[in-house]
Amino acid sequence: MGKRAIVFNPGPAMLPRPVLERVQSEMLDFAGTGMSLMEMSHRSKQFEGVLNDAVSRIKRLLRLDERYHVLFLQGGASLQFAMVPMNLAQDGKLAAYVDTGSWASKAAKEARLLGKDVMLAATSSDRNYTYIPKNIPINPDASYLHITTNNTIRGTQWHFFPESGDIPLVSDMSSDIFSRVFDPVPFGLMYAGAQKNAGPAGVTIVIVREDMLERTPEHVPTMLKYSTFTETHSLYNTPPCFAIYVVGLVMQWLEENIGGLENMEDLNRRKANLIYDYLDEQNFYHNPVEADSRSWMNVVFRLPTPELEQDCIQEANQAGLVGLKGHRSVGGCRASLYNAVDVKAVETLVDFMRDFARKRS
Amino acid sequence: MGKRAIVFNPGPAMLPRPVLERVQSEMLDFAGTGMSLMEMSHRSKQFEGVLNDAVSRIKRLLRLDERYHVLFLQGGASLQFAMVPMNLAQDGKLAAYVDTGSWASKAAKEARLLGKDVMLAATSSDRNYTYIPKNIPINPDASYLHITTNNTIRGTQWHFFPESGDIPLVSDMSSDIFSRVFDPVPFGLMYAGAQKNAGPAGVTIVIVREDMLERTPEHVPTMLKYSTFTETHSLYNTPPCFAIYVVGLVMQWLEENIGGLENMEDLNRRKANLIYDYLDEQNFYHNPVEADSRSWMNVVFRLPTPELEQDCIQEANQAGLVGLKGHRSVGGCRASLYNAVDVKAVETLVDFMRDFARKRS
Repeated sequence: MGKRAIVFNPGPAMLPRPVLERVQSEMLDFAGTGMSLMEMSHRSKQFEGVLNDAVSRIKRLLRLDERYHVLFLQGGASLQFAMVPMNLAQDGKLAAYVDTGSWASKAAKEARLLGKDVMLAATSSDRNYTYIPKNIPINPDASYLHITTNNTIRGTQWHFFPESGDIPLVSDMSSDIFSRVFDPVPFGLMYAGAQKNAGPAGVTIVIVREDMLERTPEHVPTMLKYSTFTETHSLYNTPPCFAIYVVGLVMQWLEENIGGLENMEDLNRRKANLIYDYLDEQNFYHNPVEADSRSWMNVVFRLPTPELEQDCIQEANQAGLVGLKGHRSVGGCRASLYNAVDVKAVETLVDFMRDFARKRS
Repeated sequence: MGKRAIVFNPGPAMLPRPVLERVQSEMLDFAGTGMSLMEMSHRSKQFEGVLNDAVSRIKRLLRLDERYHVLFLQGGASLQFAMVPMNLAQDGKLAAYVDTGSWASKAAKEARLLGKDVMLAATSSDRNYTYIPKNIPINPDASYLHITTNNTIRGTQWHFFPESGDIPLVSDMSSDIFSRVFDPVPFGLMYAGAQKNAGPAGVTIVIVREDMLERTPEHVPTMLKYSTFTETHSLYNTPPCFAIYVVGLVMQWLEENIGGLENMEDLNRRKANLIYDYLDEQNFYHNPVEADSRSWMNVVFRLPTPELEQDCIQEANQAGLVGLKGHRSVGGCRASLYNAVDVKAVETLVDFMRDFARKRS
């Protein structure tokens, strides 16, 4: 086997090495069954054990009370963009969205496509999405207020959540779930594609509060109703078993190797500080995000010219630091520091950046 | 590692051993990248290579002409039950379905839920779904005619397809795609959850003919439109990368180890004959399906009493033959003989059954 790369991919992203090694060792024989987990019935005791363990760990890690259901769906955040308004937008009420960039705006677009009355509660488009709006007005006629807690493309993140009173928050947490401690209580629904902090692509974690379920209208297709999955514990049809299994192993790693979300948050803060402190002390690289809105997960930075950016990405690649290219819609560079990227990896990156700046400035 | 079981699971099902060994060997380092395939960007050259290879192999294996798009979606056949009428049912026309059991009837139910004008073209409910209807009447006012090519629960399979003229066939092929040679030309759309003959759970193969795409109405959510996936080569959002990779390896095994679908069909016919010939020569076990409708994929059989059935399943389990329990809705026994189950495995099963019958009759 060759040397392992340090993966700064924006998602699918790095996975903890102990998780990959465990998956490898169990590939032909899961728990003495003589079968790969991929060959096992989703209705077997063994797989139900895997699924229930993943659910329990998520509930413990996020400190969810008994009102919350943890579901495993498919289709990524993009399918949730449609399922949220289909299930939760109430007749005669507004569907409120905060626009913090591309993904947030795609979420609102699906609600409009479905004929919902969409209200833009706030936007940071005026300053090129370089900040998270503050003092969001709460409309009492809203079904929910939708936010995108971390914006991978622009490198911004909510570090406080809107106080929305009786209006439930609905959030796309694809790129920062499990990265820090937060209070779930204001949230009626949270969703996240697993492929950043939670596992491989191919499973969407949906956490829905019991009181949201009664909103779903009658004629929503079975596979697009949240209640289909709450009533069957995510086993209405064959779920993405392997992806759920890997998510469970990542949750186990978070609990047992890392020691829970407080520790994970400390590590993520240290990692982000390492790179933002360096960015602030020099003039070769530039981070465009306003200080209080900087993402701990995705650090975007520009170099003096696009040519230098390309060289930087390429040299990093050769040094085994992969995935530093910015999103194709904005260009530049981006280092994604998801949970499985450790402090040492970020130190290696900062050393590389320092060295590159010295050689090329 | 313990002894490998012989897996007769109805799905998720047995996978070819060379595929599992390849996945295991590449788990921490895919193709010298220093990354697991699960850590790689879905927009990387390497992953696009994986995806394109899987598509090419499927096109070759099924002999699809250039009008067909091969797509990788999520949500299983159950989500297709809704997507088919959302996309393909035309205003003022009928959505025609053949009812050959539970899955077929679920497909029709979703079309009704969406308010479509569903016509039951034929049903085998009169004889407890033990046969495939013949001489299906073709209604010229139908948008499509939907069939379920293999019925896992009842153990029936279409061995000829309806001649539907200008009306496109739409088929759920979840449990027999890639098991035999067939002419795709009458089909406007074919879909299959991968977890029987094609790979792990978590990816749905959808094959859609170009002329079907223009039917989709405007207000269908983006993730539920087939054109979203044809226009982006299944990369509108992050696809289930790992499941696609395993599907590609299974297709490679079909082409390179088995030698294509003619050979696979010969093997599947041999396997099915082995067990049906035995069933026909004795009186202890009973297969209720009419001879010309017997499934090569799922062989259902009853024993004289439910107690004997339970003993049989349990003793088989202890002998390393797993997954022989019938579907919970019908009871009895069922051996699923998907592609990865080899002739020797079926011989072992028949030997076991013969032995069990001798001891207990």
